[in-house]
Amino acid sequence: MKEKIHKYFNRYVVFNRDEINEFCSKIKIKTFDKKEYILKEGEIVNHEYFILEGLVRSFYTDYKGNEKIIQFALENWWITDTDSFINQIPSFSSIQTLEKSTVLIINKKDLETLYFSNTKLERLFRIISEKTLIAIQRKANFYLQMNSKDRYNLFTTQFPIFAQRVPQYMIASYLEITPEYLSEIRSK
Amino acid sequence: MKEKIHKYFNRYVVFNRDEINEFCSKIKIKTFDKKEYILKEGEIVNHEYFILEGLVRSFYTDYKGNEKIIQFALENWWITDTDSFINQIPSFSSIQTLEKSTVLIINKKDLETLYFSNTKLERLFRIISEKTLIAIQRKANFYLQMNSKDRYNLFTTQFPIFAQRVPQYMIASYLEITPEYLSEIRSK
Repeated sequence: MKEKIHKYFNRYVVFNRDEINEFCSKIKIKTFDKKEYILKEGEIVNHEYFILEGLVRSFYTDYKGNEKIIQFALENWWITDTDSFINQIPSFSSIQTLEKSTVLIINKKDLETLYFSNTKLERLFRIISEKTLIAIQRKANFYLQMNSKDRYNLFTTQFPIFAQRVPQYMIASYLEITPEYLSEIRSK
Repeated sequence: MKEKIHKYFNRYVVFNRDEINEFCSKIKIKTFDKKEYILKEGEIVNHEYFILEGLVRSFYTDYKGNEKIIQFALENWWITDTDSFINQIPSFSSIQTLEKSTVLIINKKDLETLYFSNTKLERLFRIISEKTLIAIQRKANFYLQMNSKDRYNLFTTQFPIFAQRVPQYMIASYLEITPEYLSEIRSK
């Protein structure tokens, strides 16, 4: 597990073994069953979650009562409700596993302490925030830029692993396509 | 101008005068006329822009040929095309002034050098990235969560200054409401 974290961190900033040990002394590892909630809408979230194994989604319910999927996260992806985490307000979204998942959990206070003790972590999380920002903007853009068919084709080309592991109706929700239209696209 | 930057930085991280001087030695200040382009779609952007005075918007053209507004930025807001800036790919969006604007410009290489020489800047930009992330998510959520009328009312309550300074048809574009529907809402 430590090796996995070390390898992931080193993609962005080179950490030595002691630094990884310091980080790992502050984390918890927890396994969630399939369909278990990691976070429920309305809770104040004090943690960032890093998927070591498995697959989760974040979603909310819109004013029409429809579930809307914000994000999927699988191995080596971070997930939380950032607004709730940073501003300590009730979470807008829920996070639920789609597969049995093993998750690294880091507490807000511990993370802030670690930022001060090792500025490399500050750099790492600056880079992660920028990457998340880009992912969200790309999603918004590729929605608004493309018609449903192109949207689905681009998604399955860029993220074939999601297309394999995520139920079809959830991909439809994420891409804002009706399940009927998605099955029409797929049958062609 | 230095005092303005110092005051803004100190909202998030306390900088001393020497640190501000170091930062200011790397920046450029430029004034753009009303309706002037700071960035055009397709260019690779090497700068982050901070609005010292004025008002700008970022936007793109969707697959139907409609202009879509991504963001407005006024005094004390940062703006760029993050995907282009970080990944050095052609910019998806354009940035154009809505008023005559004075803009602080920092180069990518200089910013990266400054991150290493002063880790407080790394912290500042980690915090700014998180705030931008939250702003984008709030926008996406408040779109999908609300009907057009509530969307407009919330926007003008939260950001009265935009409602005063931004032309009505641009607010409609930003909120994804037709201009006709917006004037109907406003007339009520």
